[in-house]
Amino acid sequence: MIVILKETGDAKKISDFLDELKNQGFETHVSKGSAKTIVGIIGDVTKLDTDRIVANGIVEEVKRVSEPFKRAGRKFKPDDTLINVKGVKIGEGSFTVIAGPCSVESEEQMEFVARSVKQSGAALLRGGAFKPRTSPYAFQGLQKEGIRLLVNAGKKAGLPVVTELTSLVHLDLFGDVDVIQVGARNMQNFEMLKELGHIDKPILLKRGMSATLEEFLMSAEYILSGGNDNVILCERGIRTVETMTRNTLDISAVPLVKELSHLPIVIDPSHAAGRTDLVLPLAKAALAAGADGLMIEVHNDPAHALCDGKQSLTPDQFLSVCQKLKSRVAFEEKVWSLK
Amino acid sequence: MIVILKETGDAKKISDFLDELKNQGFETHVSKGSAKTIVGIIGDVTKLDTDRIVANGIVEEVKRVSEPFKRAGRKFKPDDTLINVKGVKIGEGSFTVIAGPCSVESEEQMEFVARSVKQSGAALLRGGAFKPRTSPYAFQGLQKEGIRLLVNAGKKAGLPVVTELTSLVHLDLFGDVDVIQVGARNMQNFEMLKELGHIDKPILLKRGMSATLEEFLMSAEYILSGGNDNVILCERGIRTVETMTRNTLDISAVPLVKELSHLPIVIDPSHAAGRTDLVLPLAKAALAAGADGLMIEVHNDPAHALCDGKQSLTPDQFLSVCQKLKSRVAFEEKVWSLK
Amino acid sequence: MIVILKETGDAKKISDFLDELKNQGFETHVSKGSAKTIVGIIGDVTKLDTDRIVANGIVEEVKRVSEPFKRAGRKFKPDDTLINVKGVKIGEGSFTVIAGPCSVESEEQMEFVARSVKQSGAALLRGGAFKPRTSPYAFQGLQKEGIRLLVNAGKKAGLPVVTELTSLVHLDLFGDVDVIQVGARNMQNFEMLKELGHIDKPILLKRGMSATLEEFLMSAEYILSGGNDNVILCERGIRTVETMTRNTLDISAVPLVKELSHLPIVIDPSHAAGRTDLVLPLAKAALAAGADGLMIEVHNDPAHALCDGKQSLTPDQFLSVCQKLKSRVAFEEKVWSLK
Amino acid sequence: MIVILKETGDAKKISDFLDELKNQGFETHVSKGSAKTIVGIIGDVTKLDTDRIVANGIVEEVKRVSEPFKRAGRKFKPDDTLINVKGVKIGEGSFTVIAGPCSVESEEQMEFVARSVKQSGAALLRGGAFKPRTSPYAFQGLQKEGIRLLVNAGKKAGLPVVTELTSLVHLDLFGDVDVIQVGARNMQNFEMLKELGHIDKPILLKRGMSATLEEFLMSAEYILSGGNDNVILCERGIRTVETMTRNTLDISAVPLVKELSHLPIVIDPSHAAGRTDLVLPLAKAALAAGADGLMIEVHNDPAHALCDGKQSLTPDQFLSVCQKLKSRVAFEEKVWSLK
Repeated sequence: MIVILKETGDAKKISDFLDELKNQGFETHVSKGSAKTIVGIIGDVTKLDTDRIVANGIVEEVKRVSEPFKRAGRKFKPDDTLINVKGVKIGEGSFTVIAGPCSVESEEQMEFVARSVKQSGAALLRGGAFKPRTSPYAFQGLQKEGIRLLVNAGKKAGLPVVTELTSLVHLDLFGDVDVIQVGARNMQNFEMLKELGHIDKPILLKRGMSATLEEFLMSAEYILSGGNDNVILCERGIRTVETMTRNTLDISAVPLVKELSHLPIVIDPSHAAGRTDLVLPLAKAALAAGADGLMIEVHNDPAHALCDGKQSLTPDQFLSVCQKLKSRVAFEEKVWSLK
Repeated sequence: MIVILKETGDAKKISDFLDELKNQGFETHVSKGSAKTIVGIIGDVTKLDTDRIVANGIVEEVKRVSEPFKRAGRKFKPDDTLINVKGVKIGEGSFTVIAGPCSVESEEQMEFVARSVKQSGAALLRGGAFKPRTSPYAFQGLQKEGIRLLVNAGKKAGLPVVTELTSLVHLDLFGDVDVIQVGARNMQNFEMLKELGHIDKPILLKRGMSATLEEFLMSAEYILSGGNDNVILCERGIRTVETMTRNTLDISAVPLVKELSHLPIVIDPSHAAGRTDLVLPLAKAALAAGADGLMIEVHNDPAHALCDGKQSLTPDQFLSVCQKLKSRVAFEEKVWSLK
Repeated sequence: MIVILKETGDAKKISDFLDELKNQGFETHVSKGSAKTIVGIIGDVTKLDTDRIVANGIVEEVKRVSEPFKRAGRKFKPDDTLINVKGVKIGEGSFTVIAGPCSVESEEQMEFVARSVKQSGAALLRGGAFKPRTSPYAFQGLQKEGIRLLVNAGKKAGLPVVTELTSLVHLDLFGDVDVIQVGARNMQNFEMLKELGHIDKPILLKRGMSATLEEFLMSAEYILSGGNDNVILCERGIRTVETMTRNTLDISAVPLVKELSHLPIVIDPSHAAGRTDLVLPLAKAALAAGADGLMIEVHNDPAHALCDGKQSLTPDQFLSVCQKLKSRVAFEEKVWSLK
Repeated sequence: MIVILKETGDAKKISDFLDELKNQGFETHVSKGSAKTIVGIIGDVTKLDTDRIVANGIVEEVKRVSEPFKRAGRKFKPDDTLINVKGVKIGEGSFTVIAGPCSVESEEQMEFVARSVKQSGAALLRGGAFKPRTSPYAFQGLQKEGIRLLVNAGKKAGLPVVTELTSLVHLDLFGDVDVIQVGARNMQNFEMLKELGHIDKPILLKRGMSATLEEFLMSAEYILSGGNDNVILCERGIRTVETMTRNTLDISAVPLVKELSHLPIVIDPSHAAGRTDLVLPLAKAALAAGADGLMIEVHNDPAHALCDGKQSLTPDQFLSVCQKLKSRVAFEEKVWSLK
């Protein structure tokens, strides 16, 4: 960690500052320039709070030299993390497709979609029971009943299920859910992340709408530091000035995560683009860039979907996407993930 | 609401679509252009879900003509909302300053800061007990004990208190808190907003880091539609490409909120700028633009603050800021709010 | 085009407004809702100025229903544009790699790089002679001499050349340049675009740092409407909140441009990422998403490059990238473009 | 300047790197941490090119400790720059209002607007003759004739004039123009900035749509380093996710520029907001934050303006804005600028 001191700092305050650091067990190197004085802090600074140093009146700026995350980092664990969800592999050479409707609407819908996406090649079933909606007047999800319908449809079709937790108060309802999703709006709901760190289920963590990759990995760190090693990262687009797409898919996140972390990363082209015509090209790009899988919205009748119909594929469209992706997965020498 | 149909839509599907709307009680007007067909939907469309319409295969785009919020809007309630917190007024010609440390650290600290900010002119005391921190290794707040210290310090100094709720599971601890703050990261924690709609305490709702004003007002709508009319909006900067400030204060939010809504709005120059030197000029700008108050971080010893010291004023600096603002508040023909 | 009128508009003003439109040859359809009145304007509205309509005091908002571009659009010209640069094909099933250093530095450098990128598979040689630099104290390019060195190196190696024009006053120096590049900072230098519309050379137009795709295509429209049909679009990343990459590559731009326009689009992974380790994965993603080619920075000695060395590949690294891409180009059933 | 070396750098390369710096006259300090080695470079690094250092294979990151600008900085010139335009003062305690239409349309229009804004309190007259428009089909300005009309109207009313230069090829036409404006889209048109550095007229430099303040000041540095000391900075909003305003006014830019630079800064509330209702509140905020003036669009008949009518005040509205601002200017102990 590098600390740049203000030009105005007096000698006494500087030596107090250095003493404080020494007392905490750090070594310090001081370089006096013509204008500024620079202090290098040496030791395990992962847990040294940048904010507290920068608050010191003599400090102008603090710069971390090493990454602020630890357990999420590749230095901590060089080998790729492989996550096993009831036999379905995510990471380490598998390519895993998660599919299903934005929201669970009925038993028939879920059973039909589950059967159909499984036949096309999906390895996990998704479906929202608790829906975070911008408007209080929009459909909020079937909630408890939605989870029941999702779990049952998954069981019938032989697919593990993923669904979003929007509040810790609902956690008890998630006992039969295989993978708990943390949505973009909750990426920095730290109390939720802490709690999920103590749970024995894989967590699918979506990147926040304007979160940096460093913040994204720090949110994963919350879960990992609690003891839960099974985190699947999901890039779903960030907010930019572009308006033709709902969000802007940050495709660079894929190779960057692969370099910095051992965790698997999947791409959600449905939310990133917000339009069905881009799902296939973005899915191809994600695979080529090294992603471990996809999360795709599929609805039996998008024209009457209770949410996000504009970005949902029909089962036929989803079949076509999977068919086109399979030869590409083989080309990448990856294995299409199925139970 | 205007619906633009795709050029490819066949006559049968269009008439089905129009019938569906009529069955829901809406009137429709159809304009056939050379290239596109446009449908105007007339009636109370506040609760018509844009997403569901856009999902229809024949629809290209949907455009709301009226605002998506209702209870938060000035049309619903033309007069300014005045919030009364144990005798402290927020809104309607009052100018209210909320001050205190980023995080509650000790009894001495809180009592000293409370006494000192009250003398300078603060009308409410703030202090974080549950701290949302990017890193799991950073100080997370004194939690339950923090609330106790805050409430006690407020009582001794005669100041109502504001503190942030980071999870509904802690809500029981907030019985003696006067105003509950929803932080920027929880602006779209809809489960929390719904619950706070049923509570009999004013809510200070901070704008999310990359939330639009419409989304901000829709989050307020969640609380209002639950039955709690006492929402104070707080603009605290949004993320942009600028790096010299922590966030970019969106000063236009002040007059826009005043135009669109009856709710009071305060500005948090400490978080917006992330640096003490900008607190005074941003506070002046906020007041001139029509804000109802400020939320300012004040710490007894910023150099040793456990969080956000870089943006915390010392009590002396805060006194100076208040002194400079008081004559301006008089110039604006507002009343400096004190119990 | 749809025009939403303010609730306050009086009948006389509305009828004047409608008369004005009729006099300009447009048909109008009026829908009166409970709150708002909506006017549909029918006819060729491409050249109707949105700004002028929105300025009318009775108008609340104007919404284009059709695209604002014409000649750049696929409706105007359904078939892909194929650009031929001295025998090198760009577009329509070819995959074309443009390579070379950020800036031309010397005869030896250019000849070595030209020979080496040609051997690896580049079809065009790039090199900056006029360099737009943030600081006036940074290297500004060899200018006239740079163009001479680039053109000569291209001739010796048998590669057409691309270089950036930073001001119309230098245009006379570009006689022997094969493709003129308009940089991101000049994407909305409309005087330059107009002039390049009258020139008989292909233009490589880079997307501006915070330009929307619609603005990008409108800038292409400037060139096309002047009579120059040979425009190559280049996506090179946009500014977002992410800091690990220099810009954020907007991979969705590739399929969107393919859908909306007939113009070819290439990707510049070097500027998008600003770091060499991402060049290969982003190149793979671009190809998979449907891009017509790449623009890659290659420098003989990046460690001593006069600009952008951090993002420049060595000739060996470039060879390796090309080798890895060639089998993918074949998989996509595209043809690796070489003269 | 601080250089962080990669962990993989070998001793030979590091010592070569240090030798190179010493040969250029710099002193270096090396700190070896447990993980990284850090080099502090001491000397006048203003002209040391960050890009070239970062390109070195052993370097991970470079961090400037001092500002990259020199002549634009307050350290270089502690006193405020006062610009005198034919007797009109900008900066140093004056508050100067520039007003006029977006584009010059006719002699009658310009003479009427000039007379009227002068009576209301404007000290300079603006009007666009060359208009940068997103669409090639939109009105492009009266060009040469527009300048003539502007200059004549200014002379008749006794107001110096400001107008935008969109290409160096038009510079000869600007002989009678008093202040040359560089628009947001040309903020990084470095060839233009260099040329304007050699001209004996004040330059009004607008901030680019997604430019950082550092980049903004570096563009001013281009002009100053050419020898032209008369630069007026103009903040006009940056692009963000907010859609209710055309841009987001970065009010923090005012105090930051005042701290970092000696140059005057004015605010353009018309372009920032893109709507007339926000002009007054944003103008008040700008004044309170310390701005040296305003640039406001005023049109005789906004409903029929050839551009930007939505954001243009009528002469009556402008009079009302000026009346409301005058007492505030006095309160700030500034002088309302008039010739």
